[in-house]
Amino acid sequence: MRKKLKELAEMVGGEVLGNGEIEIVGANSIEGAKAGEITFIAHPKYLGKLKDTEASAIVVSKEIRESGKPLLSVENPLLAFTKILILFTSKPYQPRGIDPGAWISPSAELGKDLSVYPSVYIGDRCRIGDRVTLFPGVYIGEDSVIGEDSILYPNVTLYPRSIIGKRVILHSGVIIGADGFGYVKEGTKNLKIPQLGRVRIEDDVELGANTTIDRATFGETIIRKGVKIDNLVQIAHNVEIGEDSLIVAQVGIAGSTKIGKNVILAGQVGVVDHVEIGDNVRVGAQSGVPYDLAPNQGYTGSPALPHQEFLRAITTFPKLPEMRKSLLDFEKRLKKLEELIYSKEKEKKDD
Amino acid sequence: MRKKLKELAEMVGGEVLGNGEIEIVGANSIEGAKAGEITFIAHPKYLGKLKDTEASAIVVSKEIRESGKPLLSVENPLLAFTKILILFTSKPYQPRGIDPGAWISPSAELGKDLSVYPSVYIGDRCRIGDRVTLFPGVYIGEDSVIGEDSILYPNVTLYPRSIIGKRVILHSGVIIGADGFGYVKEGTKNLKIPQLGRVRIEDDVELGANTTIDRATFGETIIRKGVKIDNLVQIAHNVEIGEDSLIVAQVGIAGSTKIGKNVILAGQVGVVDHVEIGDNVRVGAQSGVPYDLAPNQGYTGSPALPHQEFLRAITTFPKLPEMRKSLLDFEKRLKKLEELIYSKEKEKKDD
Amino acid sequence: MRKKLKELAEMVGGEVLGNGEIEIVGANSIEGAKAGEITFIAHPKYLGKLKDTEASAIVVSKEIRESGKPLLSVENPLLAFTKILILFTSKPYQPRGIDPGAWISPSAELGKDLSVYPSVYIGDRCRIGDRVTLFPGVYIGEDSVIGEDSILYPNVTLYPRSIIGKRVILHSGVIIGADGFGYVKEGTKNLKIPQLGRVRIEDDVELGANTTIDRATFGETIIRKGVKIDNLVQIAHNVEIGEDSLIVAQVGIAGSTKIGKNVILAGQVGVVDHVEIGDNVRVGAQSGVPYDLAPNQGYTGSPALPHQEFLRAITTFPKLPEMRKSLLDFEKRLKKLEELIYSKEKEKKDD
Repeated sequence: MRKKLKELAEMVGGEVLGNGEIEIVGANSIEGAKAGEITFIAHPKYLGKLKDTEASAIVVSKEIRESGKPLLSVENPLLAFTKILILFTSKPYQPRGIDPGAWISPSAELGKDLSVYPSVYIGDRCRIGDRVTLFPGVYIGEDSVIGEDSILYPNVTLYPRSIIGKRVILHSGVIIGADGFGYVKEGTKNLKIPQLGRVRIEDDVELGANTTIDRATFGETIIRKGVKIDNLVQIAHNVEIGEDSLIVAQVGIAGSTKIGKNVILAGQVGVVDHVEIGDNVRVGAQSGVPYDLAPNQGYTGSPALPHQEFLRAITTFPKLPEMRKSLLDFEKRLKKLEELIYSKEKEKKDD
Repeated sequence: MRKKLKELAEMVGGEVLGNGEIEIVGANSIEGAKAGEITFIAHPKYLGKLKDTEASAIVVSKEIRESGKPLLSVENPLLAFTKILILFTSKPYQPRGIDPGAWISPSAELGKDLSVYPSVYIGDRCRIGDRVTLFPGVYIGEDSVIGEDSILYPNVTLYPRSIIGKRVILHSGVIIGADGFGYVKEGTKNLKIPQLGRVRIEDDVELGANTTIDRATFGETIIRKGVKIDNLVQIAHNVEIGEDSLIVAQVGIAGSTKIGKNVILAGQVGVVDHVEIGDNVRVGAQSGVPYDLAPNQGYTGSPALPHQEFLRAITTFPKLPEMRKSLLDFEKRLKKLEELIYSKEKEKKDD
Repeated sequence: MRKKLKELAEMVGGEVLGNGEIEIVGANSIEGAKAGEITFIAHPKYLGKLKDTEASAIVVSKEIRESGKPLLSVENPLLAFTKILILFTSKPYQPRGIDPGAWISPSAELGKDLSVYPSVYIGDRCRIGDRVTLFPGVYIGEDSVIGEDSILYPNVTLYPRSIIGKRVILHSGVIIGADGFGYVKEGTKNLKIPQLGRVRIEDDVELGANTTIDRATFGETIIRKGVKIDNLVQIAHNVEIGEDSLIVAQVGIAGSTKIGKNVILAGQVGVVDHVEIGDNVRVGAQSGVPYDLAPNQGYTGSPALPHQEFLRAITTFPKLPEMRKSLLDFEKRLKKLEELIYSKEKEKKDD
């Protein structure tokens, strides 16, 4: 594919500074770009890196008006560059067909143009949408549904009755619908509470490698449209995650908790059960959330505090030993002053 | 199945308040229950929820004596309800037989009434008990033993010589018996210490999705009877976990550590190597345990403190900046007082 | 195999104390050793344990000159014992051949003496080195390369274009090359940034069960020679880990971060994106690293502080409530003194 720089500018709503007639044949990183390719810098502070790039054009932010090369000036360079990258790198879907080494229940309903690899298992009464890709070792438990254009990478497991939307990407090792962790003590014994619900993954969700989403006790564990979840994340039974939220690697969310829309939970965050996190909340890495969080704010710490409050406290934390020393010192000095003054007072009174 | 409410009361040792003759056909959540089904509330504070339920009867705690519907009054509503739920939802085991797409060593000993799916691998000299279920992608390394009625969900791996008890449930992606993380430095190089032991999982254990239990260096890593472990948990070599303990998601336990009976480790807890946690200990979420913990207590924090001590300290933590400000203020005020007083003292002496 | 104690001493560069002519037939733990076997103790404090061992000889550190049994005295008992253990327990590689139940692309290049189990998938144009072992359920995406003598345990996934060195061990459930977690917000929507790079694992690396290493956005995510990574670790896109570093279980490293050589990250550590950790750094368990760390030091805490500084502060942490009480008390006492003194001052001036 070849595009003139001015055509790319039109596509992303940007302005060409320099020769818009040059032809671009690909998009790449600053270090990797070759002649003919376009690259980007996200911020003027990276301007220096442009010296060494072989790229023929650069997507830049509005502040940058000049460099030796043709520029494509936009509000959000990463966004514009991503669109250009997608243009140059997306490949049309090629159905592979159904490998005879797959095991498919006669009662399963299969869409058109599937790619089903060897060692796939599709259980009774499953419905698989058009153009779905199932890599080797994928297991689809009975009565599950997978929407069109979804991709399940190798060794993904769907327990029975899982509902997967359209254009969903499940990376290798994802496990959908294992039993929630529910027991009730009878004396010291743990009696298992049957986990009878299921998991619903809506359209355009992507789940990272080895992430686990447990089935609900009753009802549904729900991952809403557009949610993106990183690797090794644990989502417990009956959790609901609102649209377009981002959940970074190794986060754990306990049972029945509700996460709002457009939330960001950074890496290794833990959220207890039965709480609510409001829309647009951002929680810093390794934080612990033991209570509801009001919307539209940032929080950090374990337990999580409003971000600025946490920063002030944690900045003081290394000064604790010195503070304690001051306290012991003050104690002595105060005592000395008190003795001196109160004895004089006493003398006076005695007079 | 149909049971009169009074029959259920007898089964769980409760008392009927209202009409004990009504017939119950199922058990469900407050929101999901239909006419003919029984539901439960764990606490009087949820009484308001009963307005909207379609359930025909409710399992309640002793404090609740009245609602518009027949009640089943018990000490522990969740426990009683779980028993009723099990009654209505458990299905008799149906052996599926052995799929020709499974690979089974001729030297393996197979029990009766197995369910072995395609793409299962059973290694040399394994012994598989009666009524065991092995889902697709399960790998059983040589010389392993699986007790009767156990279920291994898709893509579970047992390394060689693993011992699995009766009625054990291993969820998808569980990995039993991978090498412990053992190296010794030779200069800067890491020399691998051979990991020659194995893993023993006793009866009635359940392990969550993608949990990993490493084999011992020598001897055994042991998960005792009735232990329940959640998803994405790491159990290192030579660990022993005592009976009926509960290990919540994403916990990590380092090598040779010994966890007592009936312990609860909440989500994301870390325990260092070579320590002992006493019986009945409860450790709060995200805590770090760097030393032995005495039995029968709750601990929180990293490093873990007795729970109340941690709570008092963490509550003061956000006040650190203000405390530091006070200290700086006191310093000035003290100095001023000291100058004033000691100069007067000096004057006096000089007099 | 049989070796005289003096032969073992020669092999590990140690000194025999006692009868060097006795024959040793194996190596084992103190508890497990039988007559004819050698064991070790790492430190004089474990001397007491020797009473009960049945071992015929003991590897000990230089401080120990006597026990009832022949000793092999060395600088580093664990290192010497490990070498002896390897001598007695390593088995020659036996190729199993290629199972007809494996799916292998006609365009793949296969080395000699492979062990390829059933349900393995080898994609187009892959190159597999001599004596590689691929256990059941292993998936090798197209254009991947695996160096000689490497072992991939069951259900390992290599996404396309992965590069694996020689003598690499990938434990079950390892996922190499899944897409990095890269999105750019377009309004509230998350636009996926194509992940076009790959993963390179150099020689002599070992990765633990269910560990995930994401492919680079552009370029390579690199795990250098001799690195050992434990279970359930997350390595994000474009990370580089320097030679011989040790990464303990459940660590998470965010995108583009660079870890030096011979670093140790203890369990559950988190490292943010785009930082550098210097050579020989040691980071304590559960620490959070939000900035660059200078080489050759130990750090602990979240955010990580130099280890001693953290220790001093965390030791003071439980005293916070008492410190706050002191502050309130001092406030009162100071005020009282001030009132007394300044009123007298005022009186004097008024005089």
